[in-house]
Amino acid sequence: MKYLITGANGFVGRYFIEYLQKNESNAEIYGIDITENCLSDINYRQVDLSDRFSTYRILDEIRPDYIVHLAAVSSVAQSWQDPAKCFLNNTSVFLNIADGVRELGIKCRILSVGSSEEYGIYDIPMEEGFVLHPKNPYSVARLSQEYLSKLYVDYFKLDIVMTRSFNHIGPRQNPKFVIPSFIQQLVKISKGEQNELKVGNIDVVRDFLDVRDVVDAYYKIIKHSKTREVYNVCSGKGVKLRDIINTVSKQLNITPNIIVDEERIRPNEIMSVVGDNTKIKKELGWEPRYTIEKTLMDMIVKG
Amino acid sequence: MKYLITGANGFVGRYFIEYLQKNESNAEIYGIDITENCLSDINYRQVDLSDRFSTYRILDEIRPDYIVHLAAVSSVAQSWQDPAKCFLNNTSVFLNIADGVRELGIKCRILSVGSSEEYGIYDIPMEEGFVLHPKNPYSVARLSQEYLSKLYVDYFKLDIVMTRSFNHIGPRQNPKFVIPSFIQQLVKISKGEQNELKVGNIDVVRDFLDVRDVVDAYYKIIKHSKTREVYNVCSGKGVKLRDIINTVSKQLNITPNIIVDEERIRPNEIMSVVGDNTKIKKELGWEPRYTIEKTLMDMIVKG
Repeated sequence: MKYLITGANGFVGRYFIEYLQKNESNAEIYGIDITENCLSDINYRQVDLSDRFSTYRILDEIRPDYIVHLAAVSSVAQSWQDPAKCFLNNTSVFLNIADGVRELGIKCRILSVGSSEEYGIYDIPMEEGFVLHPKNPYSVARLSQEYLSKLYVDYFKLDIVMTRSFNHIGPRQNPKFVIPSFIQQLVKISKGEQNELKVGNIDVVRDFLDVRDVVDAYYKIIKHSKTREVYNVCSGKGVKLRDIINTVSKQLNITPNIIVDEERIRPNEIMSVVGDNTKIKKELGWEPRYTIEKTLMDMIVKG
Repeated sequence: MKYLITGANGFVGRYFIEYLQKNESNAEIYGIDITENCLSDINYRQVDLSDRFSTYRILDEIRPDYIVHLAAVSSVAQSWQDPAKCFLNNTSVFLNIADGVRELGIKCRILSVGSSEEYGIYDIPMEEGFVLHPKNPYSVARLSQEYLSKLYVDYFKLDIVMTRSFNHIGPRQNPKFVIPSFIQQLVKISKGEQNELKVGNIDVVRDFLDVRDVVDAYYKIIKHSKTREVYNVCSGKGVKLRDIINTVSKQLNITPNIIVDEERIRPNEIMSVVGDNTKIKKELGWEPRYTIEKTLMDMIVKG
């Protein structure tokens, strides 16, 4: 089977490649990304997916069985700064791929990744059937991608499966994200290199899933889902950021001095974002295998 | 008051300009369109709104009080042929205008035009509060525009008012649309220049509003609506295409031979699209003034 991974150098992309190499030893793995050098041992090409011609050319060259479309600019903050660019980097890139598959008549399954952000504000665990209320340009772009995915299945008979993915965490995550930022700071505090832990609002509740469970979910979705289905990919558990700080502090055996940094407070932040993962568990037999304590310890040890 | 009309040479644009010239004699009217020559007597500039820099430049030069954003490529059929272009011509163009207003700090009200297509399939008169189920790329693009409009009001404090507009008809409409096509053919039949009326599915029911009532609704919305409101712009009445053919045939005193042309049958066509106009009537005192018979007669006489 030929796999094409877009965003191959991204946080999830690298883990997905490792998962494939481990679990499907005869998989032919092709990766593309916007960056020059590949971070994995696969067939790699630098491609700008916002360029339709380049996208078509690589699709036609590889003609994959599966496209695992992980390339995205998934920052809510950036989407406020340049909403048009957010549409270009998400919706238009997706359309370039989907139109390429359609026009080149490639028989393949596409994994289209969406976001928990599509739900908007619910303070109860969110199920796939809920009405969506996007609250930022990024989630409007993701919602458009989901609508378009369904239309491409219905009218062009493409084979697309979809997710609404919640927060991911794990080793090697960019410290611009909240949990690796906390861990990086707490490790420095434990070594005496830093005095205080700088935080934003740590009373918000989020649903964190280990990236290794994320790629296992994605693999099960592309292998076993029916066409046109959408699955929440989440732990199903809400955790307060404050409790994560406490867990890591205990693991490091420190009592950090916590300082609220006004710059880290986001306007209109949603207090609780928790998903319901009943559907993927029941239909695809997926189960998360990493506890939050194990994940956090791995992040401390592996960075 | 300075008005900037985008799509000034379009079907609705020209009527809006005529309405303004008649009803607000001291209005300063600026029009832009992608075409070279202006069809009205106003300040005109050829601008490609998909070009961000050109859009910003014209916005900064005019700094209007109202932007009546009528420029669009509102073809469902074309959106299936090139969905990415549909997003560029609708969503991205809207974002260029909204970002221009935001970044240049222009104090103005924007009219954002949406479509009945956003509702998807309902066989009852559609009210503004219904859950939206877009069924083609065009309606996904329009729905994105509506979501983005609301976000720009909520977070950037822009002053945007919105519509979901149903089918328009009236004199000077392009005969690629169904009603002017029928009338053009029926007039030819009445003159003996054509033998048969070629039709698609004439049992579909649509909600047709005279374009002169449309621009009256748009004017009342920009003048009297609260920020962030969405209004259906429609007649509130469902009419079967077959009945329109009968009315026009009676007006022309002919009994046409009707032939179904398979090329005119659209796949997955929605059987009934009718809007509820209670909200705009009640809140803004708008009422349609043209009966369908009057509109059809005007189309026969004026072309």
